[in-house]
Amino acid sequence: MSLLDLSNELAIGIDIGGTNTKYGLVNHRGEILAQGDIPTDRSPDVNEFINDLHTALTPILAEFNAKIRGIGVGAPNGNYYTGTIEYAPNLPWKGIIPLAQLIGEKFGVDCTLTNDANAAAVGEMMYGAARGMKDFIMITLGTGVGSGIVANGHLIYGHDGFAGELGHTIIRPGGRLHWSTGAEGSLEAYCSATGITLTAKEMRQKYKDSLLNNYKEEEINSKVVYECAEKGDEAAKETFRFTGQILGEALANFIMFSSPEAIVLFGGVIKAGDYILNPTREYMEKNLLPIFRDKVALVFSELKEADAAILGASALAWES
Amino acid sequence: MSLLDLSNELAIGIDIGGTNTKYGLVNHRGEILAQGDIPTDRSPDVNEFINDLHTALTPILAEFNAKIRGIGVGAPNGNYYTGTIEYAPNLPWKGIIPLAQLIGEKFGVDCTLTNDANAAAVGEMMYGAARGMKDFIMITLGTGVGSGIVANGHLIYGHDGFAGELGHTIIRPGGRLHWSTGAEGSLEAYCSATGITLTAKEMRQKYKDSLLNNYKEEEINSKVVYECAEKGDEAAKETFRFTGQILGEALANFIMFSSPEAIVLFGGVIKAGDYILNPTREYMEKNLLPIFRDKVALVFSELKEADAAILGASALAWES
Repeated sequence: MSLLDLSNELAIGIDIGGTNTKYGLVNHRGEILAQGDIPTDRSPDVNEFINDLHTALTPILAEFNAKIRGIGVGAPNGNYYTGTIEYAPNLPWKGIIPLAQLIGEKFGVDCTLTNDANAAAVGEMMYGAARGMKDFIMITLGTGVGSGIVANGHLIYGHDGFAGELGHTIIRPGGRLHWSTGAEGSLEAYCSATGITLTAKEMRQKYKDSLLNNYKEEEINSKVVYECAEKGDEAAKETFRFTGQILGEALANFIMFSSPEAIVLFGGVIKAGDYILNPTREYMEKNLLPIFRDKVALVFSELKEADAAILGASALAWES
Repeated sequence: MSLLDLSNELAIGIDIGGTNTKYGLVNHRGEILAQGDIPTDRSPDVNEFINDLHTALTPILAEFNAKIRGIGVGAPNGNYYTGTIEYAPNLPWKGIIPLAQLIGEKFGVDCTLTNDANAAAVGEMMYGAARGMKDFIMITLGTGVGSGIVANGHLIYGHDGFAGELGHTIIRPGGRLHWSTGAEGSLEAYCSATGITLTAKEMRQKYKDSLLNNYKEEEINSKVVYECAEKGDEAAKETFRFTGQILGEALANFIMFSSPEAIVLFGGVIKAGDYILNPTREYMEKNLLPIFRDKVALVFSELKEADAAILGASALAWES
């Protein structure tokens, strides 16, 4: 195939989240030409999801009329080796889902699957804050907490393709019960958007004059907590401080595992900015052995939230 | 250099531990032709240690009269990239020690340094329980707790050479104070030989009729605990059960990081056998996400304790 042919090809990058699925049409220079999203949780039947995806993408594919090289997908519990999603606690489809095969058959092109956070890490390494790095860890703080670990310049997949489930490591043994996995004290139970909401609900019990008490139970979420923190509310600020403490302690453990040059934080939760970054850095440094201190950059992603995973997923399609 | 010349060469493998340092003369087939040990902690001056090492090895080198290809050293906090030992909490030499340079100058041959647990992992991968594996974690349970992590067939060194300090990860936040690092609740504080001794001293307070109460405070150690467990002593058995619980919880976290095919346990503590292996496996499995359960082999090292690190260290010399 000539270079000219290659430059006419496009790849589809898909990022499957617990609530929404984002997709983008990407050229070989990593430019997203078109993008959109569909709900992930409309049906427990994965075939309906794939039909929705096909319906959404068909007019876009018609508009650009390009040869599609392949489809890359990032999804929670996505397995690069087998192309399956296995027992993902935050997705509506239960058991083992042969997603790469189903999408490939529906669209008539090759489909490659990986973990959503792995896809975001590849995007960040190619186009974002981790450009040129050989050792870094990407932590995605969204509906859930995911991770992509790069060592010696390569993603760590592990023997079975499931490496990098750092959101499910236990940081507080016997601590908060996870709503889905049943684990006690996992990172995700505290540092996901859901975890922050739970913490805020605990905090407003302790701080009777908190602005958080002006909201109904179901209105509390990480965005509301941020708005209250901006108004100087102590309970809201303490919510982020506590979240950052747990995250910082977890990051210290991760650093002592793979000694990365940087940790890149990514996802909706980072909109809280310094409210979460400052305590995270403080407790990360405090829990490190001296040999690791003041060495690891703790940074936010440089890519728009949707773009990193779409770009990273599409990169899988170019490689396949 | 011809193959004949190579086969006449020998390498020196050195394993530096908190109390003793073991050395061996190794041929290119991985056979240890001679070995011995010297105390590590005789002097706070590293030059005296190197003199002791030279004095011990000189008659052996004279006896074999072979060309020495190089010296490989495994040591706590040993850095592969810089050849230095940096701030090792369990060694008598403080600060940054340019060990590879000092040994190389004394012996007049190239010296390569790595973390002691990394050296043991290489030995296990070449000659032991991890033969043929591309993803495994070696946990060394001795005076301290160390680790060597292999992913995609390569040791993880991290950006600065210090990856794999899993003994210092925090498993019980706010828990037992580490006697040297000052950390609270680190794996090493519980699962090293020193940690087991501390646990046994706590347990014999609770179990007033324990055989452990027949010993003086300074006589309690992991060997005594094992002997009491063999006599059916509940406090001794509970000591190992608790140690295994902490270790198992830690291993679950490590598995969710790099998803290894196996975890190889190594070092003096594994002499406790099933007393520690059974609870370790139980709590490891219990803390894993379903996708990781019943997949990871938990095994003891197949090499004699001294041999793995000497062989692994000597392998560094062949590669240099």
